[in-house]
Amino acid sequence: MSVIGGAAVWLDRPHHDGSALYVEGRRHRLGDRVAVRLRVPRGWGETEVKLWVMHDGDPLRLPTRVAAEDGAERWYQATLPVDNPEVRYRWLVGRADGYHWVTARGLFDRDVAALGDFLLTVYEPPPAWADDAIAYQIFPDRFARSGRVDVEPPGWARPAAWDDRPARGGDAAVRQWFGGDLFALAERADYLADLGVSLVYLTPFFPARSTHRYDSSTFDRVDPLLGGDQALIELSAELHRRGIRLIGDLTINHTGAAHEWFRRAQAARRGETAPNDEQGFYYWPENSPLDLGIWQQALDAQWRAPARPGVEPMADPPPEYVSWLGVPSLPKLNWNSQALVRRMIAGPDSVVGRYLRPPFDLDGWRVDVAHMTGRFASDDLYQMVARTIRQTVDSVKPDALVIGEHFFDVSRDLPGDGWHAIMNYAAFLKPAWSWLADPALDPSIWFLDVPLPVPRRTGGKVVATMREFGSAAAWPQAAHAWNMLDSHDTSRITTIGGGPEMAEVGTAWLLTYPGIPAVFAGGEGGARGVTGEEGRVTMPWDQIAAGGGERWDGGAAAAVGELIGLRRRHVALRRGGLRWAFVADDALGYLRESDGERILVALARAPWEGVVIPRLDARPASSLYRPRHAAALSLTASPEGLRIGGEGPAIGVWRL
Amino acid sequence: MSVIGGAAVWLDRPHHDGSALYVEGRRHRLGDRVAVRLRVPRGWGETEVKLWVMHDGDPLRLPTRVAAEDGAERWYQATLPVDNPEVRYRWLVGRADGYHWVTARGLFDRDVAALGDFLLTVYEPPPAWADDAIAYQIFPDRFARSGRVDVEPPGWARPAAWDDRPARGGDAAVRQWFGGDLFALAERADYLADLGVSLVYLTPFFPARSTHRYDSSTFDRVDPLLGGDQALIELSAELHRRGIRLIGDLTINHTGAAHEWFRRAQAARRGETAPNDEQGFYYWPENSPLDLGIWQQALDAQWRAPARPGVEPMADPPPEYVSWLGVPSLPKLNWNSQALVRRMIAGPDSVVGRYLRPPFDLDGWRVDVAHMTGRFASDDLYQMVARTIRQTVDSVKPDALVIGEHFFDVSRDLPGDGWHAIMNYAAFLKPAWSWLADPALDPSIWFLDVPLPVPRRTGGKVVATMREFGSAAAWPQAAHAWNMLDSHDTSRITTIGGGPEMAEVGTAWLLTYPGIPAVFAGGEGGARGVTGEEGRVTMPWDQIAAGGGERWDGGAAAAVGELIGLRRRHVALRRGGLRWAFVADDALGYLRESDGERILVALARAPWEGVVIPRLDARPASSLYRPRHAAALSLTASPEGLRIGGEGPAIGVWRL
Repeated sequence: MSVIGGAAVWLDRPHHDGSALYVEGRRHRLGDRVAVRLRVPRGWGETEVKLWVMHDGDPLRLPTRVAAEDGAERWYQATLPVDNPEVRYRWLVGRADGYHWVTARGLFDRDVAALGDFLLTVYEPPPAWADDAIAYQIFPDRFARSGRVDVEPPGWARPAAWDDRPARGGDAAVRQWFGGDLFALAERADYLADLGVSLVYLTPFFPARSTHRYDSSTFDRVDPLLGGDQALIELSAELHRRGIRLIGDLTINHTGAAHEWFRRAQAARRGETAPNDEQGFYYWPENSPLDLGIWQQALDAQWRAPARPGVEPMADPPPEYVSWLGVPSLPKLNWNSQALVRRMIAGPDSVVGRYLRPPFDLDGWRVDVAHMTGRFASDDLYQMVARTIRQTVDSVKPDALVIGEHFFDVSRDLPGDGWHAIMNYAAFLKPAWSWLADPALDPSIWFLDVPLPVPRRTGGKVVATMREFGSAAAWPQAAHAWNMLDSHDTSRITTIGGGPEMAEVGTAWLLTYPGIPAVFAGGEGGARGVTGEEGRVTMPWDQIAAGGGERWDGGAAAAVGELIGLRRRHVALRRGGLRWAFVADDALGYLRESDGERILVALARAPWEGVVIPRLDARPASSLYRPRHAAALSLTASPEGLRIGGEGPAIGVWRL
Repeated sequence: MSVIGGAAVWLDRPHHDGSALYVEGRRHRLGDRVAVRLRVPRGWGETEVKLWVMHDGDPLRLPTRVAAEDGAERWYQATLPVDNPEVRYRWLVGRADGYHWVTARGLFDRDVAALGDFLLTVYEPPPAWADDAIAYQIFPDRFARSGRVDVEPPGWARPAAWDDRPARGGDAAVRQWFGGDLFALAERADYLADLGVSLVYLTPFFPARSTHRYDSSTFDRVDPLLGGDQALIELSAELHRRGIRLIGDLTINHTGAAHEWFRRAQAARRGETAPNDEQGFYYWPENSPLDLGIWQQALDAQWRAPARPGVEPMADPPPEYVSWLGVPSLPKLNWNSQALVRRMIAGPDSVVGRYLRPPFDLDGWRVDVAHMTGRFASDDLYQMVARTIRQTVDSVKPDALVIGEHFFDVSRDLPGDGWHAIMNYAAFLKPAWSWLADPALDPSIWFLDVPLPVPRRTGGKVVATMREFGSAAAWPQAAHAWNMLDSHDTSRITTIGGGPEMAEVGTAWLLTYPGIPAVFAGGEGGARGVTGEEGRVTMPWDQIAAGGGERWDGGAAAAVGELIGLRRRHVALRRGGLRWAFVADDALGYLRESDGERILVALARAPWEGVVIPRLDARPASSLYRPRHAAALSLTASPEGLRIGGEGPAIGVWRL
């Protein structure tokens, strides 16, 4: 590693990733032999290169040959035996000063654990269209109103005016009803097509007792408040007509306490009806291996002060059932029930299957609270649920996509035979925030699951975190990670970054990085929000039409549109590998490379020293993006290499 | 972290481990509430401390309270809910510069993956006697000869004289027969008792066609060459009479090709006999999901040069069965066979059970090639085999010990419900070698599974590797890891270290470190050997009696005996926690601490700058060990703290 002007240049390191430049073939089967390649820059000083493959639990150390070389680098090639369903491998690079390991986590001059080994599996990768997907998340209550929905607001709803500011949290946020509907969304399909997105993700559309609808009361129909089944059918058709796909949002960890299943279960338990299947859909004291009172205490303890050592008696009666994080309105589903498996996830007539078929014709699901699903006490049915959903999806609509919500380390949770990929909080949103965060950010804004202020970390720390979490899954999963700068569960990036400059730096990152970039509606116009609830803003269509306004940053929207267009035009940004070029405290640079295209992206969060990248030819380099709010990074060829200037906050995207 | 005189002082960091100072109770059950503690040195600047617990897949962030404090540190305490069978947790320490994570892997000022989170499980820990065990490995052919065995050497054996040097490898090493037996070993029980060991591990004693006996031909009896069943019975009784336990060595990944099971299977397959159960004990072309010819190629490829890209036709006929690493003499067992499960591992009459019962009365097993067991192509029956063996052991002899052979990352392989612990190549032997290795070591000596010279790494790299691999399992597994400086499969430490000084530094490390220290017979007398085979030396009893000789370093033996005695006398060395005190390129120091006892160990591999450890009170410090070959490190109290001198290679062990 060379350190030049404060920035560590990483392009002098050996590199491999799962993209087409380095791994032959998109789909692999048991018994396959796959050509894999390691590129080693000249001057790195390797003495011997071997492919290290865990094979029936023991390493093979396979020979390599030089498959190609030029003045800049050497490409070593080896044959990877796919003799297990999940093959973990790494590269062993001998050098005079001792050997090095090349893993997906990075380059190491010491022995490292298997975490971060490259992973190649025999599981079907995500559908090919997902390689090019650009996603747009919509919270149905807040996107648009058609006037075609004529229903009485239910008792729980508190109608709001379209231009009201969403509440920051609590009961008010849950009940605040703006009256958006899916007919209106269908009418706005041209807006989405013009923005350039190719995939819409709708948060739940089933009836519930809140505007977020994660407390579903049935899965049998679309909420009449949103226009009912017919509105979803129209929306699906209008999007499909424009080449835009549509995925829904399914809660499989819990239902609402008002769900018809839960009501039937309770009625049977109270002896009001005959015993029924639904009794087995939930966890009760008698089928829990834990005392629910004590179980609930641990959940409560984190919200109470001061700390309570040991187990104390609860004042409240113990809960009558297990619920999501102990919240009584969300009873947890018990996946030991085969009747539940059939009803909800297995086969074409299950909830999962039914909405993928005409007339709804959804293109997949986002799965809520995936990481907790099937997990309670000594039960861990997570993999069974994930695999069953995937089998249903594959059989009903083979090119549909399944994205799991997951905030943490996916090492044990994302082999690739269940969810195709996950919402990428751990390897993208959180590290990106911890680099983009405004130094003057309100310290009362917590860092999602960490109940402390959003930290501001150096580029080196942030990239180490991205690589560590990002290397936990195989490349098809990593390359389709659902990357976000914000979602309905988080603060908005313009708030986190302290303004539009940093939001634009983040957006450039999002749209030039491997994964499925996802914009949360309103984010393109600079939406702000301190909490997830406050960030669920309505779209100010009048200001959008006018090109800007108090609630709409027209420059930001133009930038997002342009960055989406950039990604659509350049295959390297969509399907290329990822090679870190340099890392400084306040600046980052990476190459996206595919066969025949090489794009350099550089991002700065503040003024910095600039960097010279040796041995990288600048001619003909063409700048692909002119920032709206951030500054433009300069690029000049010098005898020492490519010099990138020290502007900041700033963005540079160049085709080399 | 403070860097003082080239050494990083780590004692100013927050600390937690699984030992009794930090975790209440030895055995935990589902539903338990466990008091856990984090100690934070004064001046570290914490603002808030929370216990972060993964609970049904989602984190609880639990409050802490200050349970104790003094001028040096503060102890935070929290209540850990044991609501899942395996509970992963870490500490969140807020500080003005951002939060830190405390995990078993270390202290991090960035977000880190779950690898290395502390782990607490509901599985029965290793038997209590194992806390204090000091193990001694014996290769039965090489320890002693009684003259009581009167059998003709079999055709494969090539008799050797007792003082011959073992061959370095190949066929000669496998056949070289020195004629040691178990009667003789029983007669030498006083030697073992005098040395202070409390556990003998015997490599295989079943009949085979080699002196290593990993190619067993039956499990029904002890090899007559070793004295047969009666010799093992006598040995077991003689050891038990002295309070020394005895474990055997079981191959469950494969048998020898001459095994009676394999012969019966082949006979049935050839139609010479009726079909039999044994046919199902192995993998044949018709029950393999892989083409065995292509499968074998990948195993062969690593040994051939130059590299062969792609799949080429084999000249040899494809193998008729699956074998260990493709070696035809070792056919691999197929654990899909329930008959094999019953015959070999399940229940009191299985091979596993039978030898734990009188008259043999073994105290457990070391399990050969554990990490590959049950793993072939799409089969992964590893956990089933490990759990079944453990159930048999627990039911037949509840305080017996099961140690798995495992060279790699145990993250997925050692939950604690199978093997109690593993032979610790990854987290002890390999990093220790890469610190102790002679800079002038013959580069043709490979680094075990890495086919390259043994690297020489800095202290920082070595400790990072030890922590990374060591944190993959729960504390009961880590604290009983079978630590070694060498084994029958490796070079000898005196060869690796380039002489007795470094071997003594290594031995001091081994015997003051958490885990079950294991000395390989002859190592105490400075045995040398470039390969595992060459290191399987005979014991030179005449020189031992004389206190030394060409093949026996009496000083080294006295040092080993004294270090064993030190461990036996100090509970902190056997059961204490492990807190790294300082880390330099050429020196390492750690504290072993239990309730009421604190021992500081410092090791230097070369002259270095010395270190001052602030805030560590030296009075009354007493030196516990005077080195024989290495130098003694000096310890002086100074106003700045405790000063350790810059001698090297050197050792210091002090009670503080």
